[in-house]
Amino acid sequence: MELLRNRVLHEGRVLSPKVVKVDSFLNHQVDPALTMEIGRTFADLFRNESVTKVLTIEASGIHFAMATAYALGVPFVYAKKKRAVTQSEEVYVASVHSFTRQETYQITVSKAYLCEGERVLIVDDILAEGNAIVGLVDIVSQAKAQVVGVGIAIEKSFQDGRRKLEEAGVSVQSLVRIASMENGVMTFVEEAAKAKVEE
Amino acid sequence: MELLRNRVLHEGRVLSPKVVKVDSFLNHQVDPALTMEIGRTFADLFRNESVTKVLTIEASGIHFAMATAYALGVPFVYAKKKRAVTQSEEVYVASVHSFTRQETYQITVSKAYLCEGERVLIVDDILAEGNAIVGLVDIVSQAKAQVVGVGIAIEKSFQDGRRKLEEAGVSVQSLVRIASMENGVMTFVEEAAKAKVEE
Repeated sequence: MELLRNRVLHEGRVLSPKVVKVDSFLNHQVDPALTMEIGRTFADLFRNESVTKVLTIEASGIHFAMATAYALGVPFVYAKKKRAVTQSEEVYVASVHSFTRQETYQITVSKAYLCEGERVLIVDDILAEGNAIVGLVDIVSQAKAQVVGVGIAIEKSFQDGRRKLEEAGVSVQSLVRIASMENGVMTFVEEAAKAKVEE
Repeated sequence: MELLRNRVLHEGRVLSPKVVKVDSFLNHQVDPALTMEIGRTFADLFRNESVTKVLTIEASGIHFAMATAYALGVPFVYAKKKRAVTQSEEVYVASVHSFTRQETYQITVSKAYLCEGERVLIVDDILAEGNAIVGLVDIVSQAKAQVVGVGIAIEKSFQDGRRKLEEAGVSVQSLVRIASMENGVMTFVEEAAKAKVEE
C-alpha cells in the first residue's frame, strides 16, 4: 500500500534496529482518513472469504478493526488485556508475551461474542514477534471458529511473527513490510500487499 | 439519539443499580455502523466549534474517536493508560481513579500531539463518575489547549460525572442519558441530546 508506505517512510522514526515509532499517525495520534483506507484495503483483500466477524486486541488495533468491520458490514470484537469487573460471564483466555513491554499478560474474549462456525478476520497495527496474534488465533480456535486471515498494517519482516502464523496455517496480508531498519535506514519488502501464503 | 437509546434499552443488561453492560454492541463486540452514526452525531453537535483534534482514552473510547474524527476531518489522539517502553519523549500525565476497577492509574498523552491553542473535542463511550474525562480535561489544560466540549454515548445521569464536568465549565453532550436503573428497570432523561450546559 503505497500511501501507507510513504507515511511510514517519512513519518516513522527508527529508534533502534527493531523499534520504529509510528505514533504520529497510526497508534497514538491517528489519521482517521488513512485508517479508513486501510480498513477498506483489508476488506477488499478478504472480500471473498465470507467474513462474519473482525477480531483485534486493545488498544492499537481497535480503529483498524472499526474501519475494516465497517467496510465489510460485520461486527468487530476487541480482545481485552485485563478482565474487567463488569465482565462476569465466561470468557476465552490466552496468554501473550509482549516483546515491547517484556511481560506476559492474558487476553480475553467473551464466549458470547465468538461463536462456533464464525469466519474471523484478525487485524492489527503492527506485526513483530506475532505473539498477540497467535493468542487471538488460539482464542478463535477455542471457539471452534475459523481464522480466514490476518490483516496487518505494518509488518516487521525481520522478526518472527509471519513465520509463526504461516506455520500455524494462517494467511497473512501485510500492507507494508519492513525488511530492515539497520543503521537507522528503513528498507521494504517489495510487493508486500500481493504476497500470499502458499496454501 | 433514538437509535442508540433503543439499543441500550433492548440489548443493555442491568447488572446492578449502577452497572449496565452494553458490550454486545458498544464496548467489546461493536456495531461499526452504529459507531459511525454516533461519530457523525458528535461531529454535527460540535460542527461550529472549529475542532482541531478529537481526544479519548484507551480502549473503549477509540472507535468513537475514530468515527468522530473521520466525520470532522481532523486527527484523533487516545490517551494511554500505561506508558509504553517505546514512548520515550515527554508526556502529559494525569491520575485517574476507576470506579469500575477500584484502582488509580495514570493516563498519558505525548506532548507532541496536543499543542497550545488547539480546540479539543473529548469523546467517550460512558460517563459515570467522570474521573477519566476529568483527567483528559486536565491534560488539555496542561497543553494550554481548549476543551470545546465532551461527547458521550451513554451517560449514567445518577452518577457525578456531568456535575463535575459542568462545574469545571465543560459542555457535555450525551446521546443517551440514563436517569435510573433501580430494580433492574432503566429510565431515561428526556431530550438528552438537546440538553446544553448553560454558559
